[in-house]
Amino acid sequence: MADPRFFDRAGPFTLAALAALSGAEVVPGAAPDLLLHDVAPLDGAGEGQLSFLDNRKYLDAFSASKAAACVVHPALADKAPAGMALLLSKKPYRSYALCAQAFYPLPQASGVISPAAHVDATAVLGQGVEIAAGVVVEAGAVIGDRVRIAPNAVIGRNVQIGADTIIGACASLSHCIIGARVMIYPGARIGQDGFGFAMDIDRHVRVPQLGRVIIEDDVEVGANVTIDRGAGPDTLIGRGCMIDNLVQIGHNVQLGAGCVIVAQSGISGSTRFGHHAVLAAQAGVAGHLTIGAGARIAAQSGVMRDVEPGTEVFGTPALPKRQYFRQVAMMGRLVRGKSGQGDERDGG
Amino acid sequence: MADPRFFDRAGPFTLAALAALSGAEVVPGAAPDLLLHDVAPLDGAGEGQLSFLDNRKYLDAFSASKAAACVVHPALADKAPAGMALLLSKKPYRSYALCAQAFYPLPQASGVISPAAHVDATAVLGQGVEIAAGVVVEAGAVIGDRVRIAPNAVIGRNVQIGADTIIGACASLSHCIIGARVMIYPGARIGQDGFGFAMDIDRHVRVPQLGRVIIEDDVEVGANVTIDRGAGPDTLIGRGCMIDNLVQIGHNVQLGAGCVIVAQSGISGSTRFGHHAVLAAQAGVAGHLTIGAGARIAAQSGVMRDVEPGTEVFGTPALPKRQYFRQVAMMGRLVRGKSGQGDERDGG
Amino acid sequence: MADPRFFDRAGPFTLAALAALSGAEVVPGAAPDLLLHDVAPLDGAGEGQLSFLDNRKYLDAFSASKAAACVVHPALADKAPAGMALLLSKKPYRSYALCAQAFYPLPQASGVISPAAHVDATAVLGQGVEIAAGVVVEAGAVIGDRVRIAPNAVIGRNVQIGADTIIGACASLSHCIIGARVMIYPGARIGQDGFGFAMDIDRHVRVPQLGRVIIEDDVEVGANVTIDRGAGPDTLIGRGCMIDNLVQIGHNVQLGAGCVIVAQSGISGSTRFGHHAVLAAQAGVAGHLTIGAGARIAAQSGVMRDVEPGTEVFGTPALPKRQYFRQVAMMGRLVRGKSGQGDERDGG
Repeated sequence: MADPRFFDRAGPFTLAALAALSGAEVVPGAAPDLLLHDVAPLDGAGEGQLSFLDNRKYLDAFSASKAAACVVHPALADKAPAGMALLLSKKPYRSYALCAQAFYPLPQASGVISPAAHVDATAVLGQGVEIAAGVVVEAGAVIGDRVRIAPNAVIGRNVQIGADTIIGACASLSHCIIGARVMIYPGARIGQDGFGFAMDIDRHVRVPQLGRVIIEDDVEVGANVTIDRGAGPDTLIGRGCMIDNLVQIGHNVQLGAGCVIVAQSGISGSTRFGHHAVLAAQAGVAGHLTIGAGARIAAQSGVMRDVEPGTEVFGTPALPKRQYFRQVAMMGRLVRGKSGQGDERDGG
Repeated sequence: MADPRFFDRAGPFTLAALAALSGAEVVPGAAPDLLLHDVAPLDGAGEGQLSFLDNRKYLDAFSASKAAACVVHPALADKAPAGMALLLSKKPYRSYALCAQAFYPLPQASGVISPAAHVDATAVLGQGVEIAAGVVVEAGAVIGDRVRIAPNAVIGRNVQIGADTIIGACASLSHCIIGARVMIYPGARIGQDGFGFAMDIDRHVRVPQLGRVIIEDDVEVGANVTIDRGAGPDTLIGRGCMIDNLVQIGHNVQLGAGCVIVAQSGISGSTRFGHHAVLAAQAGVAGHLTIGAGARIAAQSGVMRDVEPGTEVFGTPALPKRQYFRQVAMMGRLVRGKSGQGDERDGG
Repeated sequence: MADPRFFDRAGPFTLAALAALSGAEVVPGAAPDLLLHDVAPLDGAGEGQLSFLDNRKYLDAFSASKAAACVVHPALADKAPAGMALLLSKKPYRSYALCAQAFYPLPQASGVISPAAHVDATAVLGQGVEIAAGVVVEAGAVIGDRVRIAPNAVIGRNVQIGADTIIGACASLSHCIIGARVMIYPGARIGQDGFGFAMDIDRHVRVPQLGRVIIEDDVEVGANVTIDRGAGPDTLIGRGCMIDNLVQIGHNVQLGAGCVIVAQSGISGSTRFGHHAVLAAQAGVAGHLTIGAGARIAAQSGVMRDVEPGTEVFGTPALPKRQYFRQVAMMGRLVRGKSGQGDERDGG
């Protein structure tokens, strides 16, 4: 399926091996030693291919699929076509993701330091590091084992990078400590000065930004993202956060573990997110706020107050979900020529 | 006019030559062999200079202009000052653009591969290719004839680039097939992983992104734009699309021919645009939607439903034009202290 | 305080010296020769450290602080704890910023041109210029005294850069004239073509962009910002403007002195800002508008009309402050089930 010019496939794997690595179980009756060679979508999969069902919307495609095997929730197993081998998982998408990672693992670090890279003599490189052409590693940088650094990236003075981390092409890092298994995408900017100055009609006066950026393990930072270093405290990206492209994160922001920050959203200085909070695309959060754990901020929202843990907010200024949709509905009635009172009145 | 340090001017051209290359006609009575040396705005143009009129708002400037020649719609020709040579065109701005391209053509590829570029021995280079200092071209890349690659750009493994395409400084490409006459601006990021993972409270699990980015001929991709590769299907940018700076295009998005995507807008995964649809600045479109051919989405709108071909939508959540402006007007009345009913009522 | 791996501290300085360089006065009774070694926040500062109070909200922290010295407004001096040395300033944050700059000055240009930089033989370099590895300086560029250019930045043909300017990693400049003491952050894109073309169903036709970008002295341009060159006139960024990350500035835009343009905001073509106007985060301004001096545009606003000097606007489409908040309040009442008339009516 995947274009072999761009993707190297591993495998094949037995059904039993895929079950083991993905936290699934082989359905009774299926052959544990069935060999699978690739992954594919339900409607395109065939012999030797593994697919998945994660959404009841695709039940018909599932029942009609010619996939040799499929990851599915146990409750839907009886909808499978005859002859399909099943991997049963209560988290079928997660199990599928682990199988797909087995077929298409991240490239290994080659252990080659390109002669066209510029690595300062005082930088410390771990075992098996790969550094591509055009990369600049400045004095005192510490690069962990098996780190891969793509062409033309820049690693600033004394920056530390944990093991198995990947730095994308043309990214630049300074004033930061990066954990293990982090993925920094191309063009990301990490550690530059925050936007801090004393406004003055004569001349704005820059305030030195004396903190760092700390990125914990297993974080992803999307393409052309900007994460400013702290003004005094550090900017902190917690373990396992997923940050999409073109996101802006201001100085002193702290994200708890597992937050999801979608494309083109922005977080102003000193705001804190609890773990697993979600900021959807193009949304913005003002400075010095607290967003509770598991809170969800809808796309394009503008948040000007703290958000309670586990709640959802929408709109600008952002409102709780129920209130926002009532407002949208009310506006709809008004413009259809009704007054917002009488029998059309929502009442609330 | 244009600063000669930055722009190399061609010409001069005769009026007849400009008419021929721009799809215009020389007005009867004008000298076809009149020599023109440059382009200039109506109010600054003089001897030997060509200007244009595209908007009735500038009729006075047209009538007062000292330009030697002007591109104008036939219906406005009688407003020209005496002595001005006219090029008549039903698409005067288009004709002017073609004349201006003649005076200021894109630089030719020099055919020089900089000794300070890092081109893998297995890359295939066409005729007359220009590769600047600091460029990295990885294994197996195929670079078409007369392609120009600016300093410090990165062309990933097996990427294909069509003839006469221009790659800007510090741009990075991977997992993609690029057509002919494409312009990729500085810092654009094409082909990195899409934002796909199985969310999990323990640890989000990355889903391998196994598609590509396909960019057809004559596309422009603005500075610092991000276009993610497909998750399985490809991300597709149709022929002649114009994409402005800092746009985000998610995995599996498909744009038909000639779409216009203005700065800082974003398109979520798997959404499809019909041909010649327009997404204005800072607007966003949710995932898995269909935007019809020729539809127009206003600036800062947030689109959460399909949009019919040829229609215009505004606001968040986006509404049809008429409904949106009625809503804005209604809000205006409400805040001026009127109730939205009785004689102030819009009625609808 | 600041991590010595990333920050080099100068000093110590006497209280008197800090007063002199920051426009403050030593409070009567304090020892002018008190030696200070560092800056620190009120709640963390101790012996030998200087802090500041700029906001009455932190009066308690001030009164409890163990900082050896503090910059404070004269009106609040009596709230200081016993034994604290005071620097009195009517602009305490500005004075503090100047002190902090003394302790943490910008690094000096090293005067070293890296042998791994690619500087065209026709480029003109001033005294003491620092050019890092991987930098490309094209033909005819003129680089002022003590300019610092970070790794992998690209300086295009004939670009001019004033003295003491800093160019960040992976930034790219073309078709531009840059003033003195400018800071260009990593990944900024300056001088590429504006988004100009004649729309056409057959094929959009690019209009050559024949202007430049002019950046005056003391400007800051944030990470991954895009500033397009003019279409014919120049794009102009006035003296002392502060531009945050991921901002888009279209062709022909002109910003007066001291404007503040916050992250992810965008300004469409040919719009002019008077001096000291503020565009907050994620806001957008349509093209061909005039924003008056000192005007303030709130976060996420969409401005479609001129804005008067000194006024504040909010929302999309943007409204004057009072009207916007009345609208928000009215909406709140409506969704709580009230009709917008009768005794709940705002009246206005």
